[in-house]
This record gives sequence, structure tokens and C-alpha cells, in this order.
Amino acid sequence: VAKVAVVGAGQTRFGALPSGGRALFAEAVQAALSSVDKGMAPGEVEEAWIGSVGTGGWQLGNLAALAGEEAALSSIGLHRVENACASSGFAFRDAYLAVKSGAVQVALAGGLEKMTDLSGAHQRYWLGVSGETEWERLAGLTFGGVYGLIASRHFREFGTGREDLARVAVKAHRNASKNPAAHFRKEISIEDAMTAPAVSEPLHLYDCCPVSDGATAAILASEEVARKWTDSPVWVRGSGAATDLLAVHQRESLTSLGATKKAARAAMREAGVSVRDVKVAEVHDCFTIAELIALEDLGFAPAGGAAKMTADGETGIGGRIPVNPSGGLKAKGHPLGATGTGQVCELFKQLRGQADKGREVKGAEVALAHNVGGSGATCAVHVLGI
Amino acid sequence: VAKVAVVGAGQTRFGALPSGGRALFAEAVQAALSSVDKGMAPGEVEEAWIGSVGTGGWQLGNLAALAGEEAALSSIGLHRVENACASSGFAFRDAYLAVKSGAVQVALAGGLEKMTDLSGAHQRYWLGVSGETEWERLAGLTFGGVYGLIASRHFREFGTGREDLARVAVKAHRNASKNPAAHFRKEISIEDAMTAPAVSEPLHLYDCCPVSDGATAAILASEEVARKWTDSPVWVRGSGAATDLLAVHQRESLTSLGATKKAARAAMREAGVSVRDVKVAEVHDCFTIAELIALEDLGFAPAGGAAKMTADGETGIGGRIPVNPSGGLKAKGHPLGATGTGQVCELFKQLRGQADKGREVKGAEVALAHNVGGSGATCAVHVLGI
Repeated sequence: VAKVAVVGAGQTRFGALPSGGRALFAEAVQAALSSVDKGMAPGEVEEAWIGSVGTGGWQLGNLAALAGEEAALSSIGLHRVENACASSGFAFRDAYLAVKSGAVQVALAGGLEKMTDLSGAHQRYWLGVSGETEWERLAGLTFGGVYGLIASRHFREFGTGREDLARVAVKAHRNASKNPAAHFRKEISIEDAMTAPAVSEPLHLYDCCPVSDGATAAILASEEVARKWTDSPVWVRGSGAATDLLAVHQRESLTSLGATKKAARAAMREAGVSVRDVKVAEVHDCFTIAELIALEDLGFAPAGGAAKMTADGETGIGGRIPVNPSGGLKAKGHPLGATGTGQVCELFKQLRGQADKGREVKGAEVALAHNVGGSGATCAVHVLGI
Repeated sequence: VAKVAVVGAGQTRFGALPSGGRALFAEAVQAALSSVDKGMAPGEVEEAWIGSVGTGGWQLGNLAALAGEEAALSSIGLHRVENACASSGFAFRDAYLAVKSGAVQVALAGGLEKMTDLSGAHQRYWLGVSGETEWERLAGLTFGGVYGLIASRHFREFGTGREDLARVAVKAHRNASKNPAAHFRKEISIEDAMTAPAVSEPLHLYDCCPVSDGATAAILASEEVARKWTDSPVWVRGSGAATDLLAVHQRESLTSLGATKKAARAAMREAGVSVRDVKVAEVHDCFTIAELIALEDLGFAPAGGAAKMTADGETGIGGRIPVNPSGGLKAKGHPLGATGTGQVCELFKQLRGQADKGREVKGAEVALAHNVGGSGATCAVHVLGI
């Protein structure tokens, strides 16, 4: 079986940025190319998959063509992938499969989103369109609302409380404070989180990820070609993708995402690892409750067990399994279509021992990226390793 | 190198249809599954790529999850691919690469679009968003306008005239009149085309494809698995994808699409065939001028030579190289995201000798599908063969 390596990964800062979407993507592609040890020119990339929800409509159709153009990728095959907030997780899978097939030797997976130039109402529209339309969006249910319902149910089934969520937020902000690329660089206390205004009970301000601009890119290469570009490749050891029903009320459970479980099983099976082998993970924490549920669905904790695991410090830097050392969606930020390959950017650095001081996960050889679309209808999981 | 087969392909009728987008896609998937000789259940499909521009916003984000759900494809990995009118040509390439990689044994590529429930202004918006935003759409240039400019330039460079375009339309309507799945089933005369009202000079009514609803799907399988499902597989012999600058004024030429040339070269090289080996083709004739240019860019005719070739009857049924035996986008119809795999549906039948009476291309063993996004910024070409 052909092995596929990540030989470069780079991103813009996440946050409220002055640049437009195209310029952000060009910056991320350049950062990824520059991160390749031997230095890579854009012309080496043979095909690219670009994740974007397309927020704001600056270029709604054929977006990949325009984004690629500014990043000096034009003339090669460019694909726009849209799976809501999992867009670039799926773009990464597409690029992985393309290299694995032998048809492409060097592929780029990336993502971009420009959101902060929109008015509040327009932002709500573009965030809302990835929710189910008939039963959720048009009935007024926002993503904050969906995750509020999920959190309430988790509280009821497992006795989780607001302080359990607050601990996730505090950890995220602590990690992000050491990440120069993060949207939020400010540490917060449990008290800050507990006393912040409510957004959608039981979720308060610090339980919610921000609306961010940003772009990310990763460069994948076949084993043979990878050795030309770096002596320290990061291998894609496993990849899994799965789907669930879009409307949350139709699912079997509110406190577990079936797509996460299925995608993670597939990725770990392909990688030949169990969850105990994973030493660092970036998980999709669009809300604090989502991190707890991800830890449970991925198998790091039993159902209902992630709150204790977090309280015991197991998910912090230096803990048993550091989770979201980047700060996660929660504090690193969440530019929808850029988030999935953003997780890869973080893990690429962690596995190569290049993470920023104070949030390094030392000695990690196996990492997991978990990217969710919407409230869990789509999910892509990747296992990376050195 | 792993071989990839198309073992099934099916579609809805194209036209102004009462069903919504989800129902249309479910119907197309069912038609594709039923077309598999041994009969296939939805549960056999391991992953799917779904092309859609997402017209109308009935589900703009995470559309693949919802479309797959109604087609009984939920729980597997579903990817929405958006490359304007080439969305499902690129979805087909993604599915091809996935099967070729060995990670997936049975994949589905498809597409859907629901357009006729929109008001005229809303249709113009959704058609326009795949054009370049800054220089074209916001300046008032529609796709009819872009192709009108292209046609004018072609007239000037090569002496092409309105009657040359009319012959393309007459052929398209003749073929579509024998295709029960086509949007237009009515033959037209050269005089009808010449005297029809102007849309965007020199393009008149019959030079333009209609706004259609429709959905399409193709089922791809690895060689090993394909033999279980059919004794008559159609092989994907070559696949190519390429991109050009989005804004037409920035391109080197108005009368040639660089992305077509590059994608075709790649697909034919992989297939090990030359254009002379191709015995039937479905090309992207969103406007009649686009068919002439496609024939020239693909190499069926020299630059400026496609009008004569058409006048000589070489592209008609029974001609040297029948082009758009389905009726093409022009008369079979053009449900944006569904068009690319719709071309595959036609060629699957043609190569297996199952095309409708009166428009069969007898004895064809190599076929070519050419799918263009927008005014040529993206292009996917596939060579199929038996």
C-alpha cells in the first residue's frame, strides 16, 4: 500500500483579519510551501482540494479557481470541497486518496474563510446555512442553540455541569495564549467563564468558539517523492470519513455523534492503532460541550467520563493525552472551511517537535485530527504519525 | 496500476420537474443502483462525492449529508463538490481517485440541481455566482454575455457565422428528440434557430442551454469488485482536471479554453489514446459556440475548423465522431451540478450498446466526457472505454 506523507503545513493567523479570502489563502499556501524543509515552489503542486463554506459570497461558485489563482496554483486541477465546518477535513481526505492512488505525487489540501467583514445578521445567515434548513434554521435554531440542547441533555444523562465546561474553556485559552496564530491570546479563569453572559443555556460566552477569518494548507506527497523534500515527513497513517442524519432530532442520541465514532474507527483501523496509542489530538470543539463529547466518542474517555478526565488535567499540556494544544476552535479560532487543515498544521508541528514553547507535547509519535461538519452530520478523522 | 470501472449509471429526466433536489438525487441514485447488472443495494456504496452548485439555498451548507440521507447513503463518507457547472465532473474524478487508491472498493459520483422553482431574478443570481464576481457579475456580465463575447471573437478570427451555430443547435435538438430523459424533445430547423429572438448577440434563443432540474449518479468499482456486479463494465481509462483564470479578460485567448486542452491531454495520456481513437463524445455545450470551441480544444478539429466539421455532418449520429448524442447541455438540459455525471450516464449506455433507438453510436469502444465550470475556469475530462 502506497504511503502518503505530509511534507509541509502552514496557515495564516486566525482572527479578525484585514485581508480578504483570496489573500488569506495565498498566504497560507505560501506558508505551507515555505515549511517544506527543502523549500517548495507552487509549481510542484499537481492538484489541490480547497475547503470553504464560501461565507459572504465574494465568490460563491467556482471559488477554487479564484482562490488557487491568487496562490499561484492556477492551471492545475482545483476542487472546492464544502462539507460545512468539516470542509477541509474532507479536502485533506481527498488529497490523501489522490496521492495514495498514484495519480498525483504532490497534492495540496487547504481551506479558507472570510467572515468578519460581514454584518452580524449576515454572519448568522452564513453560519446557519450549514444547519438543517427545514427543522432547524428556519425554525430559528442556531448552532449555539443546537449545542445548548446537546449540553442540556449531557448534563441530564451524565451529571455534567457548567464548571466542567468552564474547565475546557480555561484549558483552551491557556493553550491559545501560547499560540501566536490564535484568535484569542488571553488566559481566562474558571470564574470568568462561570460569570460570563449566557448565549444559549447552559452555554455561556466562553463556551463558544469565535467567528474567525483564516486560511490553512497542507502539502501531501507520495513516499517516494516525500524523501526529496524532507527528512522528517509526517505520515498519514489512517483516514476515515462518515456521515450522520443532518437534523439532530432524528438521531439516536443527542450526546454522541455517530459520524465521529464511525470515522474514528475507520481511521484507527487503517492506521493499525488504538486510541491508547494516540498521544496528542486536535478535536472539533466549536463549543466546550463538543470537546467532551468528542473525547467520549473517540474513545479517550467512556461515555460521560470526559469531564472527570478534564478536571484531572489529563487533557492539558503534560497530561496523559493533551487535547487541542493549539487552543482548538474555541480559542485558536474557527474559520469554518479552514479549520480541518488547521488541525493538521498544529499536529504537523507537534509531531516534528516544532510547536511553540510552553505548549509542546513532547515525544508524541501518533496524533489524531477530528473535524466535524455542522452539528455532526459529517466527520473526517485522520491519524498522523512519525 | 489499479483499474476502475463504472458498473452503473442512472439519472432523472432533465427538465422543469416537480420534485425537490433531495428527491431528485434519491431517484438518480436508485436509477444508478438498478442499472447495475446484478442489482446493487445502497449499502454497497462505501463513499460518495456529490456535485452541486447548491442553487436556491434549500440546503446551502453540508448539502451532501442531506442529499445522501434521502438516497439511503447516510453514515458513509459524503463529500459535496462545487466547481460550478463542472461540479460532478470533478466529483467523478474524486470517486475515481478514491477507488484507484484502494481505500474504497465501491464509490458513487453524482450531482443534483433544483433550479426551476426559483424566480427569474433568483435564477440569474444563482447562475451568476459561478462567474467572476468583481469584473464580470457585478459589472452585469451574465454567462450569456460572456459566451456572446466569445462567439463574436470566434466569428472575427475564423469567419464563423450564426448559421454555424444554428447547425449545432439543430443537431442537439434532433438527438434530444430521441432521448426520453431530455429537457427538449422537439426538433428545430435552421430557420427556427436563425429567426429566434436574440439573447446576447450573436447568440439567439436556440444557442443557449435551458435552466433545468435534474440529478445523476454513477457507480465506480475496483476491477476486482466490478466483476461481481457486471460482465460489461465500462472502464475509466483516463482522467484529467485543470484550471484557468476565472475572469475571461485575463486569459490569453477568448476562442480557446486552456483548461480543456490541459485536462484533455492528461486524460488521453493516461488512457493511452489519441483523439482519433475517441468514437463518441459528450462535450460541454452550454452555448452552441461552446461546442465548436470544445471540438477545437479537444483536437477533433483544428482551431476554427469545427464549424465545417459540423456542417459536413461529422458530429451527427452516424458521422465520424458523434458529439452529444444525448442532446448535450443545449437540448438534453443543464442542471449545473448534475451535468458532469449526466455525461457519464450517456456514455455508459452508448458504450454498452444500450442507447435509445435512433441515436446509437454503433461500435464505439472509446468515449470522452468534457465538463466545464463557468466560462472555462475549471475543466474535467474523462476517457471511458470497454
